[in-house]
Amino acid sequence: MDHIPIISDRTLYHESPEPLKLEMGGELPEVKIAYRTWGTLNETKSNVILICHALTGNADADVWWSDMFADGGAFDETRDFIICSNVIGSCYGTTGPLSLNPLTGRHYGPDFPRITIRDMVLVQHRLLMALGIGKVQLVVGASLGGMQVLEWGYMYPEMVHAIMPMGVSGRHSAWCIAQSEAQRQAIAADGEWNDGWYDPARQPQKGLAAARMMAMCTYRCFENFQARFGRELQDNVTFKAESYMRYQGKKLVGRFDANTYLTLTRAMDMHDLGRGRGEYEAVLGSFQVPVEILSIDSDILYPKEEQEELARLIPDSRILFLDEPYGHDAFLIDIETVSRMVCEFKAEIARRAQSAA
Amino acid sequence: MDHIPIISDRTLYHESPEPLKLEMGGELPEVKIAYRTWGTLNETKSNVILICHALTGNADADVWWSDMFADGGAFDETRDFIICSNVIGSCYGTTGPLSLNPLTGRHYGPDFPRITIRDMVLVQHRLLMALGIGKVQLVVGASLGGMQVLEWGYMYPEMVHAIMPMGVSGRHSAWCIAQSEAQRQAIAADGEWNDGWYDPARQPQKGLAAARMMAMCTYRCFENFQARFGRELQDNVTFKAESYMRYQGKKLVGRFDANTYLTLTRAMDMHDLGRGRGEYEAVLGSFQVPVEILSIDSDILYPKEEQEELARLIPDSRILFLDEPYGHDAFLIDIETVSRMVCEFKAEIARRAQSAA
Repeated sequence: MDHIPIISDRTLYHESPEPLKLEMGGELPEVKIAYRTWGTLNETKSNVILICHALTGNADADVWWSDMFADGGAFDETRDFIICSNVIGSCYGTTGPLSLNPLTGRHYGPDFPRITIRDMVLVQHRLLMALGIGKVQLVVGASLGGMQVLEWGYMYPEMVHAIMPMGVSGRHSAWCIAQSEAQRQAIAADGEWNDGWYDPARQPQKGLAAARMMAMCTYRCFENFQARFGRELQDNVTFKAESYMRYQGKKLVGRFDANTYLTLTRAMDMHDLGRGRGEYEAVLGSFQVPVEILSIDSDILYPKEEQEELARLIPDSRILFLDEPYGHDAFLIDIETVSRMVCEFKAEIARRAQSAA
Repeated sequence: MDHIPIISDRTLYHESPEPLKLEMGGELPEVKIAYRTWGTLNETKSNVILICHALTGNADADVWWSDMFADGGAFDETRDFIICSNVIGSCYGTTGPLSLNPLTGRHYGPDFPRITIRDMVLVQHRLLMALGIGKVQLVVGASLGGMQVLEWGYMYPEMVHAIMPMGVSGRHSAWCIAQSEAQRQAIAADGEWNDGWYDPARQPQKGLAAARMMAMCTYRCFENFQARFGRELQDNVTFKAESYMRYQGKKLVGRFDANTYLTLTRAMDMHDLGRGRGEYEAVLGSFQVPVEILSIDSDILYPKEEQEELARLIPDSRILFLDEPYGHDAFLIDIETVSRMVCEFKAEIARRAQSAA
């Protein structure tokens, strides 16, 4: 099963034996949560930072966001207690489509129930309760992570001191839903797909790779591709831009699962802070926690108008911009700026706490 | 062979028995050209308009650009002699991957040679020569059509009076190449693909559909999807945006061929007015014909900076903008504006011809 992702040996697990009722109506009989921590929980339990990962991310935030952990960076292991858990529905250790279904003794595969961002946050909340953590200084994350961050702010305002969503909207747009669907259909086109009942050892690699290639186009932008590749050739018949696509596709299939891709993109499509809570504007207007919104100027997936809307509607909010032309992935690339922004927001939260004390 | 496109019974054919040497080195032993005409060639043969079609288009310009033929529209059958031919490599009657290879007696399929935009123009030129047409008042087209329009302006300046490229660049960007490659890989992921040696009666429909869905995202834009679909549901579990994607995918596989999709997107990737002709800037600087460039503000595939570059570099040029938020496909949607712009340019060409006389 060479496509099953390698999980860091520093990963910790929390087994939650009670069933998890899901927002869309299904139920998981038991939940295992994979997570990592960095630093030490202080005596007053007042130094917790929660990181939420993106679509193909995992609990190893020190790998995919490594420079944020550098000296002087956003996450300070000497002072903060940092937690990152793999989301429900993923394939990096937390219960997901690749997990064994205790009711059938085989992988969930396409039987894995529909989940939502709120389910992800509920599971993270369970983990924090199990760890005896009742207060979180800051919840931070981008993209799918940013959706969780926003839901944390709405669902647990008494627990969370501040949130910092990045490169995200308050509800998934038709544009994003359409992109997701095109990617899912590329997976379903693969001859190995078999309605999701593929042998995990022989997953629909080509379809998943094509989906990733499509996604990579939306994670970057025109300027970024142009600056890196232009019309340069890799060999006589292949452009560097093509070769880069194939490389990105291949890289993902070695570390991700096709059913997981469907499960998580569907959860993203369901993202809507307003769902079942009343008017969208009123829901955002009811946010109680301080929100620092990071917007990416060149993001074609979550255009800045969406973050500007969040900033307009959420009372205690401020918007900051990443203005280098990297596209959506800027939160993984322009780390110096992102890290500085997180540091400054942490300082601001601390100042506020001090003046309130 | 239900996926083979229906070709209008008004289509005319020109059989060109001499071999066609291709720019990339291959050769086609014979070429058949499918074309349509509207109106009557006048005595001085001075009323010819040549329309160049886009990727999945065909010679039936009165179908895919129907409103341009309306009374008072851009194309006036009572005054103009309008020609549109299916490009070489396509599947609507002109020699392409679905045609029989006279050397093997079977479909070319993936053996169809690499072609370029210049080959397309060369073949159109053959057709015009065969029809006894030595002068063209206007060459007009968008996207892949716009690439041909630009090549017409460079390759046959003595024959062409004016050109009007729309929603296109002077050379295909890394961004466009990457998108094309992701789409091609979705086709190749399909279980029916068989390295292109599929039975034409059972082509890789799912892969081609997924490719089309990705492409549709790039043909429109965020605002267009949002305005049309928002987060509206089609049924309990399907968003309208998803349903629209599936519909678009299905629609294309009923009228297009997968090998043709690869052949034509590769030709687009090769588009570069500068290739083999010297410095790109100098090549554009050497254009002798009047060029009216139509730019689409909301085009994410060929952003307006690319048309602004054309306008800056081509001496006798002017740039106009479509500013409704439809994305790249605006040339097919905002017809009232496009038609008016073509009419005005035609009038301008006529004025110039008069003052020169």
